[in-house]
Amino acid sequence: MMMSLDDKGSVQIQTKVLPQDSWTQVSCPCCVSKQVESLVLIQLSDNVQPVTKRWLISLIEASKRHGGAALLAHPGEDECGDVIVVSAPRCTFLKATEDLGLCKKYHNEDMVAFSYHDRDNFSNVDDMQEFLTLAERQYIVKNELDSLQAQKKQRIPGVPEAPGVLEAWENICQKLVRAGVIKDIFPLHDQQRLNDLGRRWYSKKQIWGQPLDAIQSYFGSTVAFYFSFLDFYTWALVPPAFLGLVLTFLLPGGGGVVKEQAVEGVMEDDDDGPSVSGHMVQAVFSMLWSTLFIELWKRRSSSLSHRWGTLNLAERFAGPRPGFQGTLGLNPETGRLEPLFPEWQRQLRVGLVSLPLVGLFMGLVVLGMTGFYRGEALVQGFHQDSGSLFSGALLYLPSMAHIVYTNMLGNVYHAVAMQLTEWENHREESSFQNHHTTKVLLFTFFNNFAVLFHIAFYKQDLPLLRKRLASMLIGNQLMNQCTEVVVPFMVDRFLSAPHKKEQEDDLEMDKLRAQRSLPPFPGLFAEYIELLLQFGYLSLFSCVYPLTAVLLLLNNITEIRGDAYKFCKLFRKPFSAPVSNMGVWQTAFEVLGFVSVMSNCWLLLLSPRVQEFCLEGGISGKNIILFAILVEHVLILVKMILAFMIPDEPDWVRIKREQIEFNSMQALGQQKL
Amino acid sequence: MMMSLDDKGSVQIQTKVLPQDSWTQVSCPCCVSKQVESLVLIQLSDNVQPVTKRWLISLIEASKRHGGAALLAHPGEDECGDVIVVSAPRCTFLKATEDLGLCKKYHNEDMVAFSYHDRDNFSNVDDMQEFLTLAERQYIVKNELDSLQAQKKQRIPGVPEAPGVLEAWENICQKLVRAGVIKDIFPLHDQQRLNDLGRRWYSKKQIWGQPLDAIQSYFGSTVAFYFSFLDFYTWALVPPAFLGLVLTFLLPGGGGVVKEQAVEGVMEDDDDGPSVSGHMVQAVFSMLWSTLFIELWKRRSSSLSHRWGTLNLAERFAGPRPGFQGTLGLNPETGRLEPLFPEWQRQLRVGLVSLPLVGLFMGLVVLGMTGFYRGEALVQGFHQDSGSLFSGALLYLPSMAHIVYTNMLGNVYHAVAMQLTEWENHREESSFQNHHTTKVLLFTFFNNFAVLFHIAFYKQDLPLLRKRLASMLIGNQLMNQCTEVVVPFMVDRFLSAPHKKEQEDDLEMDKLRAQRSLPPFPGLFAEYIELLLQFGYLSLFSCVYPLTAVLLLLNNITEIRGDAYKFCKLFRKPFSAPVSNMGVWQTAFEVLGFVSVMSNCWLLLLSPRVQEFCLEGGISGKNIILFAILVEHVLILVKMILAFMIPDEPDWVRIKREQIEFNSMQALGQQKL
Repeated sequence: MMMSLDDKGSVQIQTKVLPQDSWTQVSCPCCVSKQVESLVLIQLSDNVQPVTKRWLISLIEASKRHGGAALLAHPGEDECGDVIVVSAPRCTFLKATEDLGLCKKYHNEDMVAFSYHDRDNFSNVDDMQEFLTLAERQYIVKNELDSLQAQKKQRIPGVPEAPGVLEAWENICQKLVRAGVIKDIFPLHDQQRLNDLGRRWYSKKQIWGQPLDAIQSYFGSTVAFYFSFLDFYTWALVPPAFLGLVLTFLLPGGGGVVKEQAVEGVMEDDDDGPSVSGHMVQAVFSMLWSTLFIELWKRRSSSLSHRWGTLNLAERFAGPRPGFQGTLGLNPETGRLEPLFPEWQRQLRVGLVSLPLVGLFMGLVVLGMTGFYRGEALVQGFHQDSGSLFSGALLYLPSMAHIVYTNMLGNVYHAVAMQLTEWENHREESSFQNHHTTKVLLFTFFNNFAVLFHIAFYKQDLPLLRKRLASMLIGNQLMNQCTEVVVPFMVDRFLSAPHKKEQEDDLEMDKLRAQRSLPPFPGLFAEYIELLLQFGYLSLFSCVYPLTAVLLLLNNITEIRGDAYKFCKLFRKPFSAPVSNMGVWQTAFEVLGFVSVMSNCWLLLLSPRVQEFCLEGGISGKNIILFAILVEHVLILVKMILAFMIPDEPDWVRIKREQIEFNSMQALGQQKL
Repeated sequence: MMMSLDDKGSVQIQTKVLPQDSWTQVSCPCCVSKQVESLVLIQLSDNVQPVTKRWLISLIEASKRHGGAALLAHPGEDECGDVIVVSAPRCTFLKATEDLGLCKKYHNEDMVAFSYHDRDNFSNVDDMQEFLTLAERQYIVKNELDSLQAQKKQRIPGVPEAPGVLEAWENICQKLVRAGVIKDIFPLHDQQRLNDLGRRWYSKKQIWGQPLDAIQSYFGSTVAFYFSFLDFYTWALVPPAFLGLVLTFLLPGGGGVVKEQAVEGVMEDDDDGPSVSGHMVQAVFSMLWSTLFIELWKRRSSSLSHRWGTLNLAERFAGPRPGFQGTLGLNPETGRLEPLFPEWQRQLRVGLVSLPLVGLFMGLVVLGMTGFYRGEALVQGFHQDSGSLFSGALLYLPSMAHIVYTNMLGNVYHAVAMQLTEWENHREESSFQNHHTTKVLLFTFFNNFAVLFHIAFYKQDLPLLRKRLASMLIGNQLMNQCTEVVVPFMVDRFLSAPHKKEQEDDLEMDKLRAQRSLPPFPGLFAEYIELLLQFGYLSLFSCVYPLTAVLLLLNNITEIRGDAYKFCKLFRKPFSAPVSNMGVWQTAFEVLGFVSVMSNCWLLLLSPRVQEFCLEGGISGKNIILFAILVEHVLILVKMILAFMIPDEPDWVRIKREQIEFNSMQALGQQKL
């Protein structure tokens, strides 16, 4: 299967196929080139007027001084078609690279923040396909399109009066989407590169490493960071998996039996957890491991960021994200005219509205769960009393009601989270993403773990927890693998394949347009949350079920290839902003590490063997609790000291970063303002 | 008394008194001036050879290119005298200002990082006495003296062979101190400015505010930050003091009686703490208050730092501190030749040697305390058995042994802490100070609070805790006020005064020299630790003794004036590096805030009234503990959210800081490297 995909490597390179003379022309001599690469496709609505399309093309190609985007546009087959293909000239690329704050290779092989003024000293500056990655080129085009603003109040030609009036400084692309002129803007796949990438990524020969640089180049750093983290995390699972195997099969304590039963999903033996010492070892190891894991990942992350030139991004000094509202004024930092919104007002909105609302929804989750347990007890009591067929059917009612309730709550919450984050009015895209992700993340996490926490902390029933954890682990993984890979693969293979065949002799333009039939890229949220939940099962509760890490390790080895295949074959290419780390996900993993200390101490306290051990030693229940609290506090302290002692970036990255700082300080000193 | 001191304002300004033609000459035309200000005095040993003195003067005045300090030197009355007075020419000041990264007023009134290249656009750049504060001028002179290094291996003229050989790159001042040539280097007081400052600071008319800018200008930002903090802290004590008064006198619960007894030091009534609700209110209030206090201080601190031009210090890019050891190499960040020492090695030393050693000493403190309690129990048992005079005398043995042990341990620890910090080999002075302070601080804090913690957590005896806290508060404060102010004042007034009189008609040179008779400035450690201990009593244990804040408030109002008088009158002027915050002290206060949540929850749990309340409600002891843990974790979470929500710097400071960053990024982009 993989090989047959790879055979397609012989198709023509798409970038050379569109009729080159139909591209809009550039005046700048350095930007003239024979070959223009198709980067981004704007899909217009079917009934768009030619005059509107001409107006949009003229706007795209106009220089920035005239309120344009300084890009290149191609009208497709003819001026009436419903697509515009967009690319960019060299000067636009270079200026945008400086504005983004990307670092590029200097002639002395160092990574240096790119400066347009100093461009001739950078490597490959004449060949944009070498100088910028495909993902960067496409992101720059999107960014320029996004920053199109109406210079003054004006009408959009060919669009009826009501939706077609642009206010001064209104964002043009957003307006055109709202007015129904633009249906979609998406970056184009490059089939040859994609096949090359696939061959190096998920073919049978390639089992151990991943071509991270090639991923970064093709999909951008957002996706590349996800796969780097997945890789790092999978390797990091080896020690706990090993420990789990040792504790289960080699040490006395009966874990082996538990495992057999867990796999069969029976496990009736209620008191057969690992021994006290095994328990202890597992808990302390888990605490140390999670700290080391996250600290070492930070170091890895910062060296990747240096490698990919995103150590020094200047998002703060770029224009605000589209959708940002504010009163027009001079930005005090950069001196540019743009909408402004005071920081304290945003903080107030976050603190006084978003935070309580998120809390409220969490409360509703708890309420739902309480209702479910109450309902179940009630119905069971009723069934025992009456024993009729009707009361038997009634037994299913609470769980069904709970499922409906949870789903509805989830849908409402997702809408509310998006609205709230929009309303918080973040200036930077990354800040928007982080706040939105945090909201959804908290809810999803809470929703998933509420049951386990309830069992562990309220019911205090370890055997049930062990049973639940095992079934959740196995069930979730099977379901994820299934929904994530198998179903889309089947759909792609059997439903879409005949459709594909037809197109093989089609025009190049149609091939590009056909990419729209792929579903849009769903984002990395689902992928990251899966890892976070895994990490949660592992670090929060693994001491009751030591084989967790083994199962996760097995899962992740297939997950890497599955995700790779999915991203390459089953979805449209995503736009991907250059980023310097995983953003809020890193924090989420870190926080989970701290919560895990608390839960592990608690589980140790509950463990029947520890209780027995203490009873034998004649220690009172109150003193065990106090001792557990003490241990918890000390472990958290150790964790904090450890996190503090391990520097977040390797020495050589720190030196590079400080070099940049020193140089800019020097430069500022040399300059008369 | 104050007024008579102020009367001295009429004495001649010292800076104009030394014979001006004896100063070494400058070649730079912009640096020639008629008046040279005496800034720093180098006290040589009595038997120093004239040839050594001449050599040192020539080194001080030589240009940097020739391995000198580019300063101005004055030999005192004649070439054989045992002092050198040092000042600096304008160019040296300006270049050092840039190197330090100080911000100064630009012609548009903004604070901008000073650039020598752009000097003409800064205000007051022609008048060094306006442009730099006295403290900055003196620090710059010291810094230049400290950076004197031997260019090659050479002999010091007039010093015998053995101690008199300078290795290449050896620090000259340090060597001369070790060789006994230099006895002391200290900055000179400026009597007129000092009297002006005193009049505005601690005279009877000035009760409410402090002249912080004048303090910063005369004593430097280190001292100014201390007094700003003291001021801020004292005002911040008003709300808890008010609450304490209300809880004690207005609410039922018998606190009023306790207070009476506490003052008399009797307090036998063992169960008379505040009521449950008062307890709760006090604990929650204390938690919120400490968070708000420290967060608001951070904001205040950063705006002071902007005001004083220390927002953007470049310590990292300056040369290493004297005493820093390393192999000579090119600094990868700045490209300068200097000793290098890898960061990871320092981290290892801190983590693997210093941390365990500090822990060991903490253990020894605990050991000492345990020994003391054991010994006391033993001796009391013996005395009860025998009842003889000998056994009665023996009763004092444990506490005496404990005092001796604690003192010896303290002395050993102080020496070890200094040695360890030296050995950790910090490159920057601030990093050295922070690590040294942290070590001493931990020990002192532990030593002071071990007893209280023992009573609270081990003995679990609230009435004893209340008694101990009250007596420690009152005792410590009285003793501090006494040793800090009254004794030195007496000494100054009655022992040194006749001595002073004699000198009033002396030569200017002798007056300068006489400043050496003042004791050297003891540093701010004692002052800060006093505040930290106060804050500890208040936040950790105040819920058992609500009047703590009132006592502290009264103490601090006198403390401000006392410290001011002491710093102005009783000590030599200290050198003071420009700093941008309180350094590690801020962290210490913050950490204490978190510990206070834990201790307050614990004390609530112990409180007999809460126990009673629970017994009446039929809640089991185990459940109360679990509930208390839950409350503790939630409160810590709230505290962290609150700390996160309140930005650490006001918006306007953040904007200024980001402006500087944006400008240097722009400057770097404009420059060809």
